[in-house]
Amino acid sequence: MRTVGILGGMGPEATILLMQRLLRAVPARNDADHIPLIVHQNPAVPSRIARLIEGQGEDPGPVLAAMARDLQAAGAKALAMPCNTAHGFVPQIIAASSLPFLDMRTATVATLPPGRVGMLASPAVRLTGVFDEAMKSAGTEPVWPQDDAPVLALIQRVKAGGSGPDAMTQMAQLADQMARQSDHLLVACTELSLLTGAIAQPFTDSLDCLVTAIAAFAQGHTPD
Amino acid sequence: MRTVGILGGMGPEATILLMQRLLRAVPARNDADHIPLIVHQNPAVPSRIARLIEGQGEDPGPVLAAMARDLQAAGAKALAMPCNTAHGFVPQIIAASSLPFLDMRTATVATLPPGRVGMLASPAVRLTGVFDEAMKSAGTEPVWPQDDAPVLALIQRVKAGGSGPDAMTQMAQLADQMARQSDHLLVACTELSLLTGAIAQPFTDSLDCLVTAIAAFAQGHTPD
Repeated sequence: MRTVGILGGMGPEATILLMQRLLRAVPARNDADHIPLIVHQNPAVPSRIARLIEGQGEDPGPVLAAMARDLQAAGAKALAMPCNTAHGFVPQIIAASSLPFLDMRTATVATLPPGRVGMLASPAVRLTGVFDEAMKSAGTEPVWPQDDAPVLALIQRVKAGGSGPDAMTQMAQLADQMARQSDHLLVACTELSLLTGAIAQPFTDSLDCLVTAIAAFAQGHTPD
Repeated sequence: MRTVGILGGMGPEATILLMQRLLRAVPARNDADHIPLIVHQNPAVPSRIARLIEGQGEDPGPVLAAMARDLQAAGAKALAMPCNTAHGFVPQIIAASSLPFLDMRTATVATLPPGRVGMLASPAVRLTGVFDEAMKSAGTEPVWPQDDAPVLALIQRVKAGGSGPDAMTQMAQLADQMARQSDHLLVACTELSLLTGAIAQPFTDSLDCLVTAIAAFAQGHTPD
């Protein structure tokens, strides 16, 4: 199997969730059946939201580029990043190493049904348009929450460790509201991937799509 | 904070448990409060049990040494390994890099009360004597299960993904049995750390001791 390097820590709990889902995605009888990873759990990547929404703070791009180089030095054969918002910095990551990058957006959009997609995602994902090109070419149309504040508050709450009952209730309300305006829901924030148990409607979780792409690469089902 | 390199994947679920406990050990308001790690989640480390107990299979030592070099190349400032049995290969790991090694045995034995310690651990830990020296100098005396087979079966069960109610019941029985022969219990197998919820008696979990040592190093409370 081929080792995949993970640009992680955005947030650290979402990175752990990716690792857990990868474990569950592989039928295993012993350790050796599992996917090899090198995980850069770097919680000190400068805030993507502060940079992209508020236009302030340190640029995360050079930090992510350095992480890509670290992962290649450690022996990773491809890179993946369980943070949708940070995909706004993919050009800097790709330029920093010679490894293939398993893009969560491409992996996700390929699985979406056509039509209106209710986005359960950070306002930073909308403002930076990271999903726009891939969704447009797939014939899907993103629909966004009318008010950014509750989504952003929920994401910050999860980052502070709050994925308990209150967060689940807020997630359910957000999903209900977005489902009324769309044909299918897309969880495109890995912090919100921690709360998918609260969603009653049909949905796709971008983190699951990345899990599939990582497993396929590691097991050699995709080209180098 | 200083990044700690984790020699992981033995098994992969125990490595994830270490990461979760590190998250919970740090009071955090945002991502950046958490401990930076580079995690070598390598499920292909040759079986420690096969090599140490059955005397067969590939030597895990060179693989662990290569992982230590990978982690140093990626920027880790110290090494730690959430697998008690694999501490039998610590000399090879230390020789492979110039980084300090945060030894789980030392961190654990320092916290044990004196007296008889009921070992909830792999027979490989007994056969290799990895804890013997540290426990002797601390004035504690290990007491081992009379029959290796049930413990080994339980560990293999967890490695195959079984940490459900049946495994918890077996863990509770094992703890009851060992508590009758000792003053304090020690979980010295990170697979069994997944089942500590089943233990009714006072116990120390070596994984928790490693978490404390990693957090202290990362936060600069221990020398380089």
